[in-house]
Amino acid sequence: MSTNQETESIYLDDIPLPDALERFRQALSAAGLDGPLESETVPLELALGRVTAEAVWAKHSSPHYHAAAMDGYALRAVDTDGASDREPVDLSVKSRAKYVDTGDAMPSWADAVIPIELVEPIPPTSDLRNCETIRIRSAVSPWSHVRLMGEDMVATELVLPAEHVLKPIDLGAVAACGHDCVCVWRQPRVAILPTGSELVPTGTPVKAGEIIEFNSLVLAGQVQSWGGEPTRFPIIADDRKKLKKSIARASKDHDLVLVIAGSSAGSEDFTASAIGDLGQVLVHGIAVRPGHPVILGILKHAASKKVKDRSVPVIGIPGYPVSAALTGEIFVEPLLANWTGRSPTDRPTLEATITRKVHSSMGDDEYLRVTVGRVGERIIAAPLTRGAGVVTSLVRADGIVIIPAGVQGLQAGENVHVQLYRTLDEIERTILVLGSHDLCIDLLAQFIAFKGARISSANLGSLGGLIALHREEAHLAGSHLLDPESGEYNLTYIEKYLPEIETVVLGFVYRQQGLILERDNPLGIQSLDDLARKDVNFINRQRGSGTRILLDYHLESQGISAAMIHGYDQEAITHLAVAASVASGRANCGLGIHAAAAALELDFIPLFQERYDLIIPKEHFQDPKLQPLLELLHDPAFRQAVKDLPGYDTAPMGKRFA
Amino acid sequence: MSTNQETESIYLDDIPLPDALERFRQALSAAGLDGPLESETVPLELALGRVTAEAVWAKHSSPHYHAAAMDGYALRAVDTDGASDREPVDLSVKSRAKYVDTGDAMPSWADAVIPIELVEPIPPTSDLRNCETIRIRSAVSPWSHVRLMGEDMVATELVLPAEHVLKPIDLGAVAACGHDCVCVWRQPRVAILPTGSELVPTGTPVKAGEIIEFNSLVLAGQVQSWGGEPTRFPIIADDRKKLKKSIARASKDHDLVLVIAGSSAGSEDFTASAIGDLGQVLVHGIAVRPGHPVILGILKHAASKKVKDRSVPVIGIPGYPVSAALTGEIFVEPLLANWTGRSPTDRPTLEATITRKVHSSMGDDEYLRVTVGRVGERIIAAPLTRGAGVVTSLVRADGIVIIPAGVQGLQAGENVHVQLYRTLDEIERTILVLGSHDLCIDLLAQFIAFKGARISSANLGSLGGLIALHREEAHLAGSHLLDPESGEYNLTYIEKYLPEIETVVLGFVYRQQGLILERDNPLGIQSLDDLARKDVNFINRQRGSGTRILLDYHLESQGISAAMIHGYDQEAITHLAVAASVASGRANCGLGIHAAAAALELDFIPLFQERYDLIIPKEHFQDPKLQPLLELLHDPAFRQAVKDLPGYDTAPMGKRFA
Repeated sequence: MSTNQETESIYLDDIPLPDALERFRQALSAAGLDGPLESETVPLELALGRVTAEAVWAKHSSPHYHAAAMDGYALRAVDTDGASDREPVDLSVKSRAKYVDTGDAMPSWADAVIPIELVEPIPPTSDLRNCETIRIRSAVSPWSHVRLMGEDMVATELVLPAEHVLKPIDLGAVAACGHDCVCVWRQPRVAILPTGSELVPTGTPVKAGEIIEFNSLVLAGQVQSWGGEPTRFPIIADDRKKLKKSIARASKDHDLVLVIAGSSAGSEDFTASAIGDLGQVLVHGIAVRPGHPVILGILKHAASKKVKDRSVPVIGIPGYPVSAALTGEIFVEPLLANWTGRSPTDRPTLEATITRKVHSSMGDDEYLRVTVGRVGERIIAAPLTRGAGVVTSLVRADGIVIIPAGVQGLQAGENVHVQLYRTLDEIERTILVLGSHDLCIDLLAQFIAFKGARISSANLGSLGGLIALHREEAHLAGSHLLDPESGEYNLTYIEKYLPEIETVVLGFVYRQQGLILERDNPLGIQSLDDLARKDVNFINRQRGSGTRILLDYHLESQGISAAMIHGYDQEAITHLAVAASVASGRANCGLGIHAAAAALELDFIPLFQERYDLIIPKEHFQDPKLQPLLELLHDPAFRQAVKDLPGYDTAPMGKRFA
Repeated sequence: MSTNQETESIYLDDIPLPDALERFRQALSAAGLDGPLESETVPLELALGRVTAEAVWAKHSSPHYHAAAMDGYALRAVDTDGASDREPVDLSVKSRAKYVDTGDAMPSWADAVIPIELVEPIPPTSDLRNCETIRIRSAVSPWSHVRLMGEDMVATELVLPAEHVLKPIDLGAVAACGHDCVCVWRQPRVAILPTGSELVPTGTPVKAGEIIEFNSLVLAGQVQSWGGEPTRFPIIADDRKKLKKSIARASKDHDLVLVIAGSSAGSEDFTASAIGDLGQVLVHGIAVRPGHPVILGILKHAASKKVKDRSVPVIGIPGYPVSAALTGEIFVEPLLANWTGRSPTDRPTLEATITRKVHSSMGDDEYLRVTVGRVGERIIAAPLTRGAGVVTSLVRADGIVIIPAGVQGLQAGENVHVQLYRTLDEIERTILVLGSHDLCIDLLAQFIAFKGARISSANLGSLGGLIALHREEAHLAGSHLLDPESGEYNLTYIEKYLPEIETVVLGFVYRQQGLILERDNPLGIQSLDDLARKDVNFINRQRGSGTRILLDYHLESQGISAAMIHGYDQEAITHLAVAASVASGRANCGLGIHAAAAALELDFIPLFQERYDLIIPKEHFQDPKLQPLLELLHDPAFRQAVKDLPGYDTAPMGKRFA
């Protein structure tokens, strides 16, 4: 297996993931930390979801006596032999029958119950529970309507094995056979230490250069859902002494310490050296993406009067949030599973077709986030952005595809194995919307959630959406492609790009496109002509997007050359990204929709109104899966929400243009 | 659709399940209780697993400024144009470059970062962060190594839709865009009222006629795992006044009241009439098995000074534990899902082959508990006992098969749809052991749990096990079939019943069979001869069991006629069930293994030692799935545990007899 770490990796000491895991495993084993922690006995009402540390054996039988299984009279079956309609048998309640409610103990002399509705009272009475004599018209077999002692469990029988995650019904079984508590594995205590002078707590109003600390929130949630007890420590500034002190303190009363490095290399260095001072750094840098600068170590506690000699594993978690969360999944989850006697989360898996080529480093195991949905007979996996800082890529991910080291990447159309974050059922309910980006698609995703459906959308531009339909990778595409010849939207493009697919073209919205400008328009830009000015720095949309086509059409008709526009080659892939570029000063001006400008409180000069349609292959148009979406197009609340966005008009919504 | 309720059902007013659900739905809708309850705002650290009541929109962008994506020098890309090895560019750190750590805000004049490892300091220094001048040997493209403002989220963008179950990473995204709390649906408060004078609390030492109250424990666990907040009330005696008072009180500060009827019909009557007094009984008796006597109702609270006029749904839960738990799944779970904005649990489902004929009432929807495993290419579903009182049938169930009303039952070999309680992965790891019952199979199940595997066993008797192997419904069978001709175990039976399957016969244990007798043997039974005595009441094992064959063999050789034995036709299907029959006085004597007698502290007279083997088709013997089981046969700890059971010898364990 050839690797090209020298070019692909900036961490000279990166080691392969399996080696890192093995080194960690060996160190844990040497410290006696490679199996479940101690057990503890907890009352049944607190035991839900915990894992049995010992098998549970029945303390007594259940039922622990022969019990009446119906309301009626207990009797000796032999006394009813030969009873018939013609020759009924009469039994005196004093000597040969006794009233019993369901659950009552059988009298020792009785071996059957006759249900109350089969009993004839002699003399007649409506109070069937207090007959003097009962008349019986058919024989009763021995032990009928009796729950035999031990029917459910016999004393000493195995009720639950060890290593069993306790479900509600299990608690019932354990209680039924005489226990009121159960022996389970102790929950590991995990300290989470965020470090970095640039960090501020959640909810703080932020200044440039300040970063909201939320990795500890995510890791605490992970630890909790994996059966551990997290403790979030306050933010530690980039100060080696303070960091060392905090780690030492945390390791005293926790089973595992997670140190989240600040995003600066400086603070990471502190983490490694602090761990080195307090114990041993086993691994610093692992060939896994995202994740690279992971530290695995063991802290040593010398014995003192109060505490025994002990080792505490420590993991240095990279600061980029996607790396942090995946490091949790790769390193923390298996450790906690091991300590709590649990199998690591069994994620459902499925085979899917990857939609586009993905290049991956030969030297690294890469964890690729994908969205997943079923289109026709195929399961489609579409790669999400790979930036380690893009939290939303994990939020939106339906699953992970692991591209192992030694593989250079994936080809479009290749079959991949996806580990799902969602249930198969959620995947089945997912509507894949590709193509042009519009805020109203977000709004649709928002409203459709109340109808039990789910939209997964990705922005490929209008043309990209049509191509995705052609490749059968989406259920519908949003598109606003103007045909300069006919002045018509989308239809000629559909003819050209989807000749073999029968489609329905549903109007969605009219929206205003125009110039997104810095607040108060300091450069006094007024029209497309101004884009050619030397002092104007433009931000463009990507090729294939309807907005780019719109721009090019109008530039040409106004005789403005693209080459004259400074920044024409700078591309952003959504309207909001264009607005963000202007808001941040990366550019002075972009072409986009009114709503995006309004979102960031930027100036806007309307230039054109355009139609944005939903292009839906007929096959999917009739699919029940899409019905919630189609219904929403006629939902007054949804229409109102669209109208409330600046620059939108719902006039075309739901109209068929083809 | 014909029904035969008159013979099948004792509840004259049983209505079909869909009608009952619809009647409940309408009443809830009329009371305005058919959607989520109110929303509440909770801090992010308490929001894990809760469901968003509103969409979350980005409060600010993330990053909210252009940020350095690496440690290095911020610069203007245009200043590096043309830089090469031959013609490097030098930039003064004072005016044209500035050191930045990852995450730092970019200076407003800069538009790119050059990573620190590509920088050459002039004059040379090891402190690369404090260069005077940096030398650059290749051009830097604009915006390289910069995280653009809004790269992750742009202010006002949709971050999470409503009705979204919050995962750890979601909390991070919500925090990253400026929130420190989130609006979620309130958790429903559910009151659970156990009723019945015969009930005693969990852990109480019990007398005959007393029943441990554990239904409320199971229902509380269910409510908790479905997102509600359960309150368990103390046991209420069968007293109409007290019950009415408790229900009224519970309904004041809870959203749902569950009344668990005592097992007596009397207390159920109280529940219905108490609900009637406090509101309205909508349904009493539903054609679903197990479950029948379910009550659905609505309690009315007239407005008072303190409280507004309100309705509270109430469900009367049948007292049999399997009925109680399934009533929770059928009625409580969907209601809580609806109130918390959640989809009801998506259970994985699969198609399986049912192993035996199941008769079902035409009038009822039947919920059949099954164990499930994969044998070869087929998924096998084996029905468990259908008794509503057998909690262990739900504990052991891998899934549920619903036999709808209008269907009379299932044929052996029929394809069925199973809703799984376990993950598909657990099903794959399951080893199906059928055949003869032995305590050491339980022990095997107990030990194998630590190896990540799972045994699902059912007792069919030795012959039943061989037949199950023939029908490819098990991975292995436990068998102790003595051939009277040869004195050999199992081999001749395998030849006869499995002629077409190549099997491995592995020795498992020697065990002592003998007479299980009442404590202190009051009847002075000494040998098989005594079974023919008039004062002796025998309990037999079922036909096809090795123990039955053993008995018949010895009876014949000793010239004792089965017809002379009182109780020869009474059958129990396990050794422990035989022992339980003797312990409870149902019989005086049975034939079984020493360990079963010892478990219930009964007398035992050893008669024969027999060999108990594991019969494994070669195909499964080589299957990696079985390896943990095969390894255990050589595990000293397992062998010791077997030896510790009375009457066992591990001498044959792991030896191949064929």
